[in-house]
Amino acid sequence: MTQDYPIYGRIDGPIVMIGFGSIGKGTWPLIERHFEYDADRFVVVEPDKSHHNFLRQHKLNFIDVALTAENYREVLGGLFPDGKGFCVNLSVDTSSLDIMKFCRELGVLYIDTVVEPWAGYYFDTEDNAARTNYALRQKVRDEKAANPGGTTAVSCCGANPGMVSWFVKEALLTLARDTGREAEAPADREGWAKLMQSLGVKGVHIAERDTQARRTPRPRGVFVNTWSVEGFIAEGFQPAELGWGTHETWFPENAHRQETGCKSAIWLERPGAITRVHTWCPTPGPQFGFLVTHNEAVSISDYYTVGAGHDPEFRPTCHYAYHPADDAVLSLHEMFGSGQQQQKHHILTEDEIVEGIDELGVLLFGHEKNALWYGSRLSNEETRDLAPYQNATGLQVTSAVLAGMVWALENPQAGIVETDEMDHARCLEVQRPYLGPVEAHYTDWTPLKDRWEHFPEDIDESDPWLFRNVLAS
Amino acid sequence: MTQDYPIYGRIDGPIVMIGFGSIGKGTWPLIERHFEYDADRFVVVEPDKSHHNFLRQHKLNFIDVALTAENYREVLGGLFPDGKGFCVNLSVDTSSLDIMKFCRELGVLYIDTVVEPWAGYYFDTEDNAARTNYALRQKVRDEKAANPGGTTAVSCCGANPGMVSWFVKEALLTLARDTGREAEAPADREGWAKLMQSLGVKGVHIAERDTQARRTPRPRGVFVNTWSVEGFIAEGFQPAELGWGTHETWFPENAHRQETGCKSAIWLERPGAITRVHTWCPTPGPQFGFLVTHNEAVSISDYYTVGAGHDPEFRPTCHYAYHPADDAVLSLHEMFGSGQQQQKHHILTEDEIVEGIDELGVLLFGHEKNALWYGSRLSNEETRDLAPYQNATGLQVTSAVLAGMVWALENPQAGIVETDEMDHARCLEVQRPYLGPVEAHYTDWTPLKDRWEHFPEDIDESDPWLFRNVLAS
Ligand SMILES: NC(=O)c1ccc[n+]([C@@H]2O[C@H](COP(=O)([O-])OP(=O)(O)OC[C@H]3O[C@@H](n4cnc5c(N)ncnc54)[C@H](O)[C@@H]3O)[C@@H](O)[C@H]2O)c1
Ligand SMILES: NC(=O)c1ccc[n+]([C@@H]2O[C@H](COP(=O)([O-])OP(=O)(O)OC[C@H]3O[C@@H](n4cnc5c(N)ncnc54)[C@H](O)[C@@H]3O)[C@@H](O)[C@H]2O)c1
Repeated sequence: MTQDYPIYGRIDGPIVMIGFGSIGKGTWPLIERHFEYDADRFVVVEPDKSHHNFLRQHKLNFIDVALTAENYREVLGGLFPDGKGFCVNLSVDTSSLDIMKFCRELGVLYIDTVVEPWAGYYFDTEDNAARTNYALRQKVRDEKAANPGGTTAVSCCGANPGMVSWFVKEALLTLARDTGREAEAPADREGWAKLMQSLGVKGVHIAERDTQARRTPRPRGVFVNTWSVEGFIAEGFQPAELGWGTHETWFPENAHRQETGCKSAIWLERPGAITRVHTWCPTPGPQFGFLVTHNEAVSISDYYTVGAGHDPEFRPTCHYAYHPADDAVLSLHEMFGSGQQQQKHHILTEDEIVEGIDELGVLLFGHEKNALWYGSRLSNEETRDLAPYQNATGLQVTSAVLAGMVWALENPQAGIVETDEMDHARCLEVQRPYLGPVEAHYTDWTPLKDRWEHFPEDIDESDPWLFRNVLAS
Repeated sequence: MTQDYPIYGRIDGPIVMIGFGSIGKGTWPLIERHFEYDADRFVVVEPDKSHHNFLRQHKLNFIDVALTAENYREVLGGLFPDGKGFCVNLSVDTSSLDIMKFCRELGVLYIDTVVEPWAGYYFDTEDNAARTNYALRQKVRDEKAANPGGTTAVSCCGANPGMVSWFVKEALLTLARDTGREAEAPADREGWAKLMQSLGVKGVHIAERDTQARRTPRPRGVFVNTWSVEGFIAEGFQPAELGWGTHETWFPENAHRQETGCKSAIWLERPGAITRVHTWCPTPGPQFGFLVTHNEAVSISDYYTVGAGHDPEFRPTCHYAYHPADDAVLSLHEMFGSGQQQQKHHILTEDEIVEGIDELGVLLFGHEKNALWYGSRLSNEETRDLAPYQNATGLQVTSAVLAGMVWALENPQAGIVETDEMDHARCLEVQRPYLGPVEAHYTDWTPLKDRWEHFPEDIDESDPWLFRNVLAS
């Protein structure tokens, strides 16, 4: 059987991929498959020697350098000599903002999957407020406000942040349809925010359950994950953070509001990866998720705000509720228990994984049908048929990068955008062949169901969907 | 190579084993190996049909009945017609106290590994104070006080509770020797308590790390453990509980003192199996343990009290700090996250376990050498060579039952005793061939080492070994 893959367009000039880790390695075959470009002008920037043999064997150009605040203009300037091309940033420890600004200066299209700071920022910064994703994102928003329009730079276009913002829109249209409302897609941000408000949605969990597993018991002293261990540890030690909805009546004791910017989010004095919330996914039903900070928690609660500031008319609560692969749950337990980061890291490969899916969706809750989960339930097995060099988690990310690149090519002068601001239908059209079953599931579960007997908990029964009830004791 | 197993004595009359689960099945071959008795008079009481084929195949007499408050006198009375024999209670859901009293009435030796209540007690009792191990143990202590002496009944003689009480004594003698003190074993309880006090010991963790694992990833919806799942769930949902030392300066907000009895322990308004503490074992170094309530936490802090009541001169803090097998950690995470007990239970067998040890010891802390871990580091592999039908966790328990039975035979008129009150040297002599490496390890780790950066924690730096620092945030 021959496969016929659509070619979405031609990329003129160099394609520079920064970082060839689990996501870079998986994005490359999708770029190769879906774009026309001059293969001689595809260059990878990758300082980790363990990836170099693969790059050589596949005849991919690469330069062995770690980008820094000091060298990035010189290195990238040299790689983009003629103001054309695409910069695909899939690295850790590089400043998304600096590189994005420089690409726009050069007239080079840009995409990344996270607002990443330069190396050292996550752990060396003393001030927790500055370590939030709110602070990192706000700087990108400020740059957009200061320099509107211009060359397109897509910010945070992975699975989450990224694809899940498109899922929120699909879920809203689904819910509108299923509750007998008109289901035409609104034309602008205000329209989407009002749609969410009118549907009675109180908030959104980015509700993920990763069940991918291999046969080897997790070795002690190794942090095992299905994507960047470095990235997960860094975000896991950032303060827990969430978009703060207008329906909330209680304020956590250890929480802080933000004083500048869009003010959509709050943060807690506690690492996200040790902070548990009650959530729901189709496969397990009710489960614990970790309240790991993510850009989309801030951006979605901002995007869907009706009104502004600390006291808008409507804003949804929004946060990540992440149940990573069991080996990662054990890795977190070991890391927090020992007080030390594991020195050895391992990302499960598609070959060693023997079972499991990454079930990643959005849980829209509080409305007349209680809660709706909408998302991708991609298995590792199916992933192996769809694209090489990645597990299910990877493909949900890389296919979002692909979609974002297509959209950027088609909208090259859109300025700095987040995925909430992109054409979700077009993006999902491109991405969908790579997502496995994409499904909508209603549930009557609420955070007040199935609490522990015998022990008092700090809950408020007047509204099951208050964050007070979602936060686990 | 032929093995030459010591025969420790003759048991006259019937041996009735109540319960043939993971511990009963593993205790049987040790009884067979080390005692003389009339094999026709060995009877198992086991209501679970899944064990019956094994019993039949091994030509073991059994009766298919669940003991209840209504039938136990009739059933056991019939099995012990002539006031002789040994009742080995290794079941869940039977009242240790009632059966022990009845055996003493009959003149039959008795042993168990836990103060177990009749079925339903753990979950149907509303009052949390009544659900504590303190309350369960106190009733046995009250019975001992009301009816001193008489036929020996050994209470709570497994690994922990049980063997660990003997380890505390060995650890104290080791510490005395290593700090240049006279190291003769004290002759009585007061002597032991004063020895602990004079050594400056502030408290004891029952510090356990179980690393046994199989190759199959834990299936969803199955609680996997290395010993009774039912027992672990029941104790895991009891309130967290600990012996409360005289060096403690802070009192947890959600804690309760006891008003009657020995007053050695307090309990928290929180299930033990979701309450984490900082602890240490030789293999992992620092790790999280769960503050699961156990009889030994209460008995050890009681036994080593100098003075009495709420305000004694000296009392150690003592509690369990349990890191069960990784599959059990995941099972707990699933259970508390879903708010539901798994319907399927699985105890890992010695055949499917491919790696790991049960490292179970006592961590004596706060003294001039900081902390000393003393315990058994038994691997599943070694266990397979030592005795059939059990994993490492099982053998640490069953060999303690064996030792307790030997001691009871040798001291048949000692009345009701806990393991703290038995001859620890004799008991360990019997048990030691089954414990793998029994080792002493000093460590300079304290609960104040390796705390999270960036986040304030409720700690008191004036004394690292305060429970306030041990309890994880
Ligand atoms: N939005 C999403 O859904 C999503 C999902 C997964 C990963 N991510 C992000 O994508 C990025 C890559 O993830 P991954 O799983 O491939 O991570 P990874 O750890 O496997 O790879 C990161 C790569 O970056 C390279 N790198 C490190 N420092 C560099 C520097 N100074 N200059 C250039 N390259 C450098 C490393 O050598 C490594 O190969 C991370 O930032 C991660 O947080 C986003
Ligand atoms: N002190 C220790 O170190 C230690 C360690 C492990 C287990 N234990 C205790 O030992 C006991 C047995 O543990 P296990 O791992 O063998 O448990 P298990 O769940 O494997 O077996 C318990 C057995 O008791 C039987 N039983 C249930 N109700 C009964 C009744 N009404 N009458 C008679 N039998 C009944 C069950 O059918 C089952 O076979 C438990 O109480 C457990 O808490 C103590």
